[in-house]
Amino acid sequence: MDHAARLRRLQETLDAPLVVSNLSNVRYLSGFTGSNAHLVVWPDRAVFLTDGRYGELAAPLVEALPGTDLVVYTEKLMEHLAGLLGSGTAHLESEAVTWSFARSLADEADADLQPATGVVEALRLVKDADEVAALRDAAAAGDAAFAELSDLADSAGSEAELGWALIDSMRRHGGEAASWDPIVAAGAGASVPHYRSGRNPVGDGLLLLDYGCVVNGYHSDMSRTVWLNGQPEPGMARIHGIVAEAQQAAIDAVAPGVAADAVDGAARAVLAGYGLEDRLLHSVGHGVGLDIHEGPWVRRNSDHVLEEGHVITVEPGVYLPGEGGVRIEDMVLVTATGGEQLTNSPKDFA
Amino acid sequence: MDHAARLRRLQETLDAPLVVSNLSNVRYLSGFTGSNAHLVVWPDRAVFLTDGRYGELAAPLVEALPGTDLVVYTEKLMEHLAGLLGSGTAHLESEAVTWSFARSLADEADADLQPATGVVEALRLVKDADEVAALRDAAAAGDAAFAELSDLADSAGSEAELGWALIDSMRRHGGEAASWDPIVAAGAGASVPHYRSGRNPVGDGLLLLDYGCVVNGYHSDMSRTVWLNGQPEPGMARIHGIVAEAQQAAIDAVAPGVAADAVDGAARAVLAGYGLEDRLLHSVGHGVGLDIHEGPWVRRNSDHVLEEGHVITVEPGVYLPGEGGVRIEDMVLVTATGGEQLTNSPKDFA
Repeated sequence: MDHAARLRRLQETLDAPLVVSNLSNVRYLSGFTGSNAHLVVWPDRAVFLTDGRYGELAAPLVEALPGTDLVVYTEKLMEHLAGLLGSGTAHLESEAVTWSFARSLADEADADLQPATGVVEALRLVKDADEVAALRDAAAAGDAAFAELSDLADSAGSEAELGWALIDSMRRHGGEAASWDPIVAAGAGASVPHYRSGRNPVGDGLLLLDYGCVVNGYHSDMSRTVWLNGQPEPGMARIHGIVAEAQQAAIDAVAPGVAADAVDGAARAVLAGYGLEDRLLHSVGHGVGLDIHEGPWVRRNSDHVLEEGHVITVEPGVYLPGEGGVRIEDMVLVTATGGEQLTNSPKDFA
Repeated sequence: MDHAARLRRLQETLDAPLVVSNLSNVRYLSGFTGSNAHLVVWPDRAVFLTDGRYGELAAPLVEALPGTDLVVYTEKLMEHLAGLLGSGTAHLESEAVTWSFARSLADEADADLQPATGVVEALRLVKDADEVAALRDAAAAGDAAFAELSDLADSAGSEAELGWALIDSMRRHGGEAASWDPIVAAGAGASVPHYRSGRNPVGDGLLLLDYGCVVNGYHSDMSRTVWLNGQPEPGMARIHGIVAEAQQAAIDAVAPGVAADAVDGAARAVLAGYGLEDRLLHSVGHGVGLDIHEGPWVRRNSDHVLEEGHVITVEPGVYLPGEGGVRIEDMVLVTATGGEQLTNSPKDFA
């Protein structure tokens, strides 16, 4: 990953210092994977601050960033930052720092602190070749786990155990565990979009899976809904067919220059045709990268317009309280001419 | 867990509304395990706010809290909060909310918003019987994994794989995976306190482990350093003996009424006797509970005084850059008369 080029691109957008505190943004700009760092960026230079635990980790990364100095502090972060920022305008990532942090820095600093949002996130929307490769590998590990589903389900005693087996399988296929647990919902549990997998047995019948892993910091995210063993319940099979149709319509809508809102709308229009639009309890998708949920936002009234290099999920669902639910989710790369699915698992219901 | 009693204890300390936004604090007061909620608490009532994903999960929990109403919102959280807070003084958890959150609420609300820190955290310091039981079970799962170490290490190809095997073992012994990965550092990697486990082989020689799991939301945290197979390097064996002596001195210092600073100091004094105090790169311990790091803080100049029911880690270490390092860590419950180790794994080096 060419972190120096990314930092340069950020610097070209700045006319005053920006304190980058969101750790995904810090990682994007430097490759740093520790749990504490701030990167102060001016148009022509930068300073990377971290504490003593991470000095050894940060040193070679900062070395690779032209015009960037490393400060390893043991305490008094606010004094360090205040000194660096001087007395002009300075921007803080207001969605990444706590109110306490902003108040403490304001007490210490002469700078005029202003909130900033989405500056580095805007650069992160379009993925470069290295990022796409990592996302592709993460999606492939998810597919590989899905290919083992019937074996994994046979030996899993509960939803939570099957979730664990999916993580284990992705790990065997090159993925690291993600920071969120798989959703494994059997039967009526599938009607709850953010179901918490528990001790319910995984046996015959409806099963909704939503899971992913991480490769080089980049996330995968996929959902499938299947009927395990035996004859599927006809009503749920019909719902599955409708969701699959809605999902395909949204995937077909993906192309550069298309509003993300229109991709959301393409799935919604199919569901509305069956009188089911109000059973979709969430947006149709989101960007995915260093964060599992990031821009572009594939939802109603989204401001984002798709560009080549965006990677989004497309994941409509229909939820029938007490009965069950269906969600089908793929990752899609926006190409020069349309969309390429990065997730390639079959979508058969039974 | 008696959440109603906890909420009542918090209410007794308040003279104005407090918006509880830290999710560990929300869980402590209500049992809620979702990813979004705010609990507004007045001296005589409370309102629990969450979004549509979690309405079904929250309803029975809020039902069990006397005088507490549930609000499930779909958007405009700030308008809801502003309306609830009215026009008097109201406190926000300033270390839990972002600067953006505080600014948005200030724009919307007539209330005089004031920062608050550590209010619920102060109640969480002393663990009740249910909490101690969960911490004990989590510590026992860590011990059970350590008992399998030689088998796990034999079949693990790398540090990361051994980390994974430790998680798998804890899971088999009743623990859930923690949100942090095990530290497994072979050889010179053990000199980095927050080493990131990688592809290095785990073979013969120095091995530092720092890991834990979760039971009912409560964390365990333990470290051991061993020499795997063959004759240990005498210099590192000597360091191990010194760290073990320092750790025992700190554990022996644990008792109600003792300053946490003095426990830290007891370990430091032993290391200083060997000229190694500057090779301890972190504090000697921390509280552990719903958060893996919480009060009481066992470090220099800590304000905390130990009380019966506190649970802390005691984890001195010595780190020799390029050579290796040793850390030994146990969880200790402060009892009426002293300290009881919750971690019970052997501390032999080889």
